[in-house]
Amino acid sequence: MGKKALLLIQDGVGDRPIASLKDRTPLEVAKTPTFDRLADTGICGLMDPLAPGIRVGTDVGMLSLFGYNPLRVYCGRGPIEAAGVDLEMQESDVAFRANFATVTGDGKIVSRRAARIREGTASLAQALDGMSLSDGTKVIFRAATEHRAVLILRGERLSHMVTPSDPGPDQAGEKVLEIYPTLKQSAAAERTARLAAEFAAKSREILREHPTNKERINKGLLPANYVLLRGAGVRRPMRSLAERFSIRGACIAGESTVKGVAKMTGFTVISDPSFTANLDTDVMKKAQAAIDALAEFDIVMLHVKGPDIASHDNDPQEKARFFELVDNACERIMTETAGADDTIFALTGDHSTPCEIGEHSADPVPVVISGTGVLRDNVKSYGEHACSSGGLGRLTGNQFLLSVLDLIDVTYRFGS
Amino acid sequence: MGKKALLLIQDGVGDRPIASLKDRTPLEVAKTPTFDRLADTGICGLMDPLAPGIRVGTDVGMLSLFGYNPLRVYCGRGPIEAAGVDLEMQESDVAFRANFATVTGDGKIVSRRAARIREGTASLAQALDGMSLSDGTKVIFRAATEHRAVLILRGERLSHMVTPSDPGPDQAGEKVLEIYPTLKQSAAAERTARLAAEFAAKSREILREHPTNKERINKGLLPANYVLLRGAGVRRPMRSLAERFSIRGACIAGESTVKGVAKMTGFTVISDPSFTANLDTDVMKKAQAAIDALAEFDIVMLHVKGPDIASHDNDPQEKARFFELVDNACERIMTETAGADDTIFALTGDHSTPCEIGEHSADPVPVVISGTGVLRDNVKSYGEHACSSGGLGRLTGNQFLLSVLDLIDVTYRFGS
Repeated sequence: MGKKALLLIQDGVGDRPIASLKDRTPLEVAKTPTFDRLADTGICGLMDPLAPGIRVGTDVGMLSLFGYNPLRVYCGRGPIEAAGVDLEMQESDVAFRANFATVTGDGKIVSRRAARIREGTASLAQALDGMSLSDGTKVIFRAATEHRAVLILRGERLSHMVTPSDPGPDQAGEKVLEIYPTLKQSAAAERTARLAAEFAAKSREILREHPTNKERINKGLLPANYVLLRGAGVRRPMRSLAERFSIRGACIAGESTVKGVAKMTGFTVISDPSFTANLDTDVMKKAQAAIDALAEFDIVMLHVKGPDIASHDNDPQEKARFFELVDNACERIMTETAGADDTIFALTGDHSTPCEIGEHSADPVPVVISGTGVLRDNVKSYGEHACSSGGLGRLTGNQFLLSVLDLIDVTYRFGS
Repeated sequence: MGKKALLLIQDGVGDRPIASLKDRTPLEVAKTPTFDRLADTGICGLMDPLAPGIRVGTDVGMLSLFGYNPLRVYCGRGPIEAAGVDLEMQESDVAFRANFATVTGDGKIVSRRAARIREGTASLAQALDGMSLSDGTKVIFRAATEHRAVLILRGERLSHMVTPSDPGPDQAGEKVLEIYPTLKQSAAAERTARLAAEFAAKSREILREHPTNKERINKGLLPANYVLLRGAGVRRPMRSLAERFSIRGACIAGESTVKGVAKMTGFTVISDPSFTANLDTDVMKKAQAAIDALAEFDIVMLHVKGPDIASHDNDPQEKARFFELVDNACERIMTETAGADDTIFALTGDHSTPCEIGEHSADPVPVVISGTGVLRDNVKSYGEHACSSGGLGRLTGNQFLLSVLDLIDVTYRFGS
């Protein structure tokens, strides 16, 4: 049995000092004896998901933690969502992230998420899948979690350089946006915008007559009578992390973006309906999944979404409370794998989300690596202030992952 | 009113330990209670304008602090000087930095700066502006401060790959250099070298007969009878910082290079004849300009040239004295804007200029960011030694600027 690594990825972990917490952060006020022990026995530092001063989304933050340079491989949310629902993209495909929505006859949005529809989306999606559009373009359409779905346009001379039809959050009452090319004088972009509009119009006819929607209307529910599109992207050539280092990797997650990135990089995704990608997720069940996965895989990524949710809700107390739950789960993993002293434990996040701004920020993420072979530094606890004087210094998400892989001896030499 | 940021950019701020100062630096021996308070309440670090080990000029250092990658956008001093005198460059233009000089009949330099001519350069420049050269090439010529001027060649198939005619400082008695192409087998570079030589010859005829020069000779002054050229460059496509982040920015400066970079990046330049870009600048008037600008703009850059001048003069005492003046001015700005606790104060520089070498060096610049949302570290004073253990770690000029912009919430997310 070779060495193993567990990366705990807490979404939105980093924060800024909060006046009501006496200028400490949620991570610093939370009682987290396990995180602190890892910091004390390990090496700490600050991690910029991409580079200092750059705010990133979860998709970009995760790509970096999976060893990629997002500036090279990132191409919109569509392809990540497609990977999340196991759709293989071909080279000329364009993928969109899609939402089932409720729209009035004259194109005004009643609900961007069709009142967060959960039931019947698979059958709605099936009615759209396989549709033929002009110029021989084929539609591939799959439902994802809740109101979410994925659209792939498959044909020739397509481009991802088109605008979304989705006007974004809090836009009830707004009109659906017209899709137009963002690249000037590109026949492919113009054509793709036209095809996306054609899909929207044809799918609207089909959804209007669909039994699931008739049933919803009878029940007094909003019908999922429109598909909003955004995040158009093409497949970028990516050599999977698993293949690059000949490792077996698992990712334990509830969130579709994280699952999508993990699948793109050749990791096995372990999920469960109780992994809600929210504050009510079953953290202990995730811990058990991690314990099981460590027996089988070389590297296990355990993602929790809770800190980011609490931060977007501007709730530092809730963020701190969630850290305590995760700390507890981490303790369980360490106890259960105590025999395996070859396991490297790493604490990180995909980006910072300060509670006071309720938004992702460019503040670096505090990180820890603990285990055999680690050069222990003087940092005694896991927090933003403490980690800033750690022995790792300041590195990118990509570099952090490689540093962990190096400690489990799966990296290879550049040069001879 | 959103959050604001003030960046104090002290030219050549960083230094090396000086034996006569008991191995401290000018910044460390200067009494700077305001800088120290900012360091104490803020987060500190070391900034490499471009990258560790790379010496930069003020132009490159400023480009980095304005958020650009100089390796991509920098193309000689000519285009920056052109922006500084409000000349709009077209895509095929080549701009040169020019000097009025005094040259003998057989082309030997008597004075590279025509004895630092100050009067009458506008009228001399006007006599050259609009000149026609071979192949339909047009001359655009403007006077800048003192002996400085800008030449733009406007025509087709021009190239910036040509050598300077200016042999550089301390070359009195040397011959004016011949301009030749630096790109082999490039018709455009050969043509541009020929056109620049044609401009030099024709302008010489015109300057010889110009009333301003006849008057100077009568007064016993050296005539400005030649135009030396250097820093040929073309316009590089640059999206202005102001546009990129939808911010209103102001730059308070006396130096033409700094003004040029600021204008290129969409900032409003605030200047005054008392801003001399020297040790005798009116620092308190600059402070007042900063106070006024903070009421109107999102980000204000306040540049002082003094530390660099004292360093080039190998004068650590004078450098320290100048820091004390600026510290005082900084105190005034902080007092006057005390109501605005949303203002982020940042201390930085465009590069280091150690007094003992009297030249720009690659030593990193000590930096501070203080204000709401900043993760305070353990550094108590502003200096090279103290900042090296700061919580920011080590970042580039570009990353430093983005980190400040992130704190005033004007950055946007990469990914979703």
